[in-house]
Amino acid sequence: MKPIEDVSRRKLLIAGSALIGCAAMPARLVRAQSASRGAALPELVEFERLVAANRILANEDVVDAFGHVSIRDPRDPERFVMSRSRSPAFVEHDDLMEFDLEGNAIDGRGRRPYGERMIHAAVYAARADVNSVVHHHAYGVLPFTITDAPLTPVVHTASVIGSEIPVWDIRDSYGDTDMLVRTIEQGRNLAAALGDNTCLLMRGHGAVVTAENIKRAVLTSVYLQVNADILLRAEEIGRPVPLSAGEISRSAETQFSPLAVDRTWEYFCLRAGVDPV
Amino acid sequence: MKPIEDVSRRKLLIAGSALIGCAAMPARLVRAQSASRGAALPELVEFERLVAANRILANEDVVDAFGHVSIRDPRDPERFVMSRSRSPAFVEHDDLMEFDLEGNAIDGRGRRPYGERMIHAAVYAARADVNSVVHHHAYGVLPFTITDAPLTPVVHTASVIGSEIPVWDIRDSYGDTDMLVRTIEQGRNLAAALGDNTCLLMRGHGAVVTAENIKRAVLTSVYLQVNADILLRAEEIGRPVPLSAGEISRSAETQFSPLAVDRTWEYFCLRAGVDPV
Amino acid sequence: MKPIEDVSRRKLLIAGSALIGCAAMPARLVRAQSASRGAALPELVEFERLVAANRILANEDVVDAFGHVSIRDPRDPERFVMSRSRSPAFVEHDDLMEFDLEGNAIDGRGRRPYGERMIHAAVYAARADVNSVVHHHAYGVLPFTITDAPLTPVVHTASVIGSEIPVWDIRDSYGDTDMLVRTIEQGRNLAAALGDNTCLLMRGHGAVVTAENIKRAVLTSVYLQVNADILLRAEEIGRPVPLSAGEISRSAETQFSPLAVDRTWEYFCLRAGVDPV
Amino acid sequence: MKPIEDVSRRKLLIAGSALIGCAAMPARLVRAQSASRGAALPELVEFERLVAANRILANEDVVDAFGHVSIRDPRDPERFVMSRSRSPAFVEHDDLMEFDLEGNAIDGRGRRPYGERMIHAAVYAARADVNSVVHHHAYGVLPFTITDAPLTPVVHTASVIGSEIPVWDIRDSYGDTDMLVRTIEQGRNLAAALGDNTCLLMRGHGAVVTAENIKRAVLTSVYLQVNADILLRAEEIGRPVPLSAGEISRSAETQFSPLAVDRTWEYFCLRAGVDPV
Repeated sequence: MKPIEDVSRRKLLIAGSALIGCAAMPARLVRAQSASRGAALPELVEFERLVAANRILANEDVVDAFGHVSIRDPRDPERFVMSRSRSPAFVEHDDLMEFDLEGNAIDGRGRRPYGERMIHAAVYAARADVNSVVHHHAYGVLPFTITDAPLTPVVHTASVIGSEIPVWDIRDSYGDTDMLVRTIEQGRNLAAALGDNTCLLMRGHGAVVTAENIKRAVLTSVYLQVNADILLRAEEIGRPVPLSAGEISRSAETQFSPLAVDRTWEYFCLRAGVDPV
Repeated sequence: MKPIEDVSRRKLLIAGSALIGCAAMPARLVRAQSASRGAALPELVEFERLVAANRILANEDVVDAFGHVSIRDPRDPERFVMSRSRSPAFVEHDDLMEFDLEGNAIDGRGRRPYGERMIHAAVYAARADVNSVVHHHAYGVLPFTITDAPLTPVVHTASVIGSEIPVWDIRDSYGDTDMLVRTIEQGRNLAAALGDNTCLLMRGHGAVVTAENIKRAVLTSVYLQVNADILLRAEEIGRPVPLSAGEISRSAETQFSPLAVDRTWEYFCLRAGVDPV
Repeated sequence: MKPIEDVSRRKLLIAGSALIGCAAMPARLVRAQSASRGAALPELVEFERLVAANRILANEDVVDAFGHVSIRDPRDPERFVMSRSRSPAFVEHDDLMEFDLEGNAIDGRGRRPYGERMIHAAVYAARADVNSVVHHHAYGVLPFTITDAPLTPVVHTASVIGSEIPVWDIRDSYGDTDMLVRTIEQGRNLAAALGDNTCLLMRGHGAVVTAENIKRAVLTSVYLQVNADILLRAEEIGRPVPLSAGEISRSAETQFSPLAVDRTWEYFCLRAGVDPV
Repeated sequence: MKPIEDVSRRKLLIAGSALIGCAAMPARLVRAQSASRGAALPELVEFERLVAANRILANEDVVDAFGHVSIRDPRDPERFVMSRSRSPAFVEHDDLMEFDLEGNAIDGRGRRPYGERMIHAAVYAARADVNSVVHHHAYGVLPFTITDAPLTPVVHTASVIGSEIPVWDIRDSYGDTDMLVRTIEQGRNLAAALGDNTCLLMRGHGAVVTAENIKRAVLTSVYLQVNADILLRAEEIGRPVPLSAGEISRSAETQFSPLAVDRTWEYFCLRAGVDPV
């Protein structure tokens, strides 16, 4: 935990460089401008949050050099937005790119997209209820992708990960690959395995986390890792008692209440040195 | 461990914002003022310590976005004081709220209280010897809430956690819930399970730590986690030898001596960047 | 993760002291100067990267007070370059020394070389495809040097460590020693055990990592440790599924693509506070 | 790992407060002054190193609020020097106190000594070869104090801990106590159990580390913990192979060579933000 006064200093520095919101500017006007000139995405608060989410996920050790987070475009549900290929720790507003639901860049301007954007494209296409997706390789979660020990929620803060977390193995449908989800077809295969669940594990690779909004996606990603750590440690001393189905659904509702989501978002933002927008 | 000169810098910064004590001002006078105007709580040293305790518990990874610490009001034993609903890392004096022993806010001024303040209310009502309560979800402790491995003190610095730590399961009396202690009735049920012990574990949720004063409560919370980590690791290599009952009581007396409490408090405060008041 | 603005501050500081590149200066000219005067090595970008690699490996906890990294001299394949005997965290350009492939210093200027430079000398002599070597004692890797549990790649980012990692025991050929590789003969013995593999473990001591270039050597060293941590944790909850041979080779190709190597290099450099050259 | 430029800043700050050496001043003269006036200890380089050792042990997580380090007085072998009762992270020159070999303060000036100074007194009395003693509760070491798993050196950097590490249980001779070594008699009992070994574990309490000089004592304390961590993790995946007796003695000789000790000392000092004197 960094002390609060360091956070203040950081906020100033960041405010001076990357995270200046412009929510006051009408989104439609901004959009028209950018469309007519092929310019960067407008500075909507949703995009500011997307930049913040990148920094948070890096700061909480959910992502390292790899991993990415996206949102469904608030201006067009048939599109989504994520950074160009870059480590999340360093993502800035100008790195953001827009894609259609088959993973094609709308206005690439020569920037290199993430190779695995198809995960996001396919999930947004399959799940109208999902507006944010995280793909990561959190080290605490990875042991559960390579063993048959189920990653069940055992603490109430992690109830948001849901009662079922399927494990998808790319080898089952595609044989030996480089393990990456490179085509929209592979993305759809993954999305089918995800079904109506919130999270999915990828064997020997990582996880996919989905949510109704980006704050929930970040919260769920962090506590997926927390739960994995606690469960693994509990396995060393006994037979862990999981939450019941009723506890999971009721507790998830509480954890996703505005009160809990806002408190968590403020916490994650200040720790990462970004403004809690 | 942060180096000592960083700490000095932090102290200055904090002194300029939140932690200015005013122990020289007569408490009764201050209280009359605040009572007549419905203003914030007076700046007593006890409240300054409560703010410091919030920062320490965050800095030592006992709490994250969630968890809270309270004290019995030094001016009125039928009341207690804790922050409004906020991550402990960021609590300041103005966040403090006063409650009666049924959990009702005395002077809420529109601030949102913690949902689980009933834990504190019920413990203060049941235990006249308790003047500070911590509720937390320390990750190192949580494995012991979901297995039947007893969390026994195995190192002398952790003797303060006491020889018996009951595990309370909200499901036993209330069936499927969102796992939170939301009513004073549930709080009393928990307090009954706590009995005369110092600590209590809550299945799939966290822990409650009680103490005669806030310094002891912080000390006990930190070493509860230290003991849990050491015990869990010891289980991996053999059969751990616990402290005997006599060792626990004698060692706890030493750990709670002014010498040890003050040394620990200075240590925790300087690490967290707050003035050791 | 340090926040990005801290990184900027550090870059400035370092630019003012140690890491000023001079890639614009013709290497041949610089070399002639240094050869005629017995001066320090020229400031080639390759040497700047070598200094950066030292800092990165320290920052990522791959090395501590001990461990070292070298490159084959870009100006002469029969020589290699590494720091004088110093903890990698503090290495600067002027610490760099040049050696022939039997480990003799070319222009020592009284500086003390690493005792184990023979590891590097022998590997460069035996493996024309290797242009960078890391020797380290990463704590996460060491358990696999003293048990017969094979260190197999189980996650795709670690595919670069290769499918076979031999364990070399100095005792097999040399009986009781101080465990260090002190002679070129011992280095050759180690290099023979390495064979065509990328990594080698040394019983009760550490590891050797080889690569075609320094960026790959750093990437492989970091993910060797990540894989070891994940594999060890997976062993606690089940029977880990390894990557298949086909997955290892295809995934390693992807991880060693310029896109992935550059993203990782930027990430490691900024975290360590050095310019991503 | 903190980056090197931060270290420079820290050194300046510390130079301005606590760690100004005065090796140029004749020790005998300084001593006469302090003896005649009952003033603080002179600013010998040995005392400067003792202050540095306190900071290092805190920075490397060997000690927390508790634990202490001492040296035999370089001016009088029948005396030893350690801080007054204070967390090692904050020790400054003026905290240093001198004791005779029965633990009596020479010039206390009202300062409170550590309760467990008898450990140091008795070890110096029993072991003429020992000039520095560390007592600590390093969390990684504690599991080995409460199980019968032997803490054997398994990696060469930890060979300095020695082949035999006895476990002393205060209960064997003194029944139920507060676990602290409070009397010189108890200290002698512990020293007898230590015998000619370098380290000793205290059941449910901590460890004692001895060395010929303070740099070696710090090095040994750190690697005792490193070895404990690695050994414990190795136990999870197999049956660890220990170093042989010959490897331990030869490797310890290398680790205690001036080259290795100085490199390690520089490393620990710069990480802790103190001048490597």
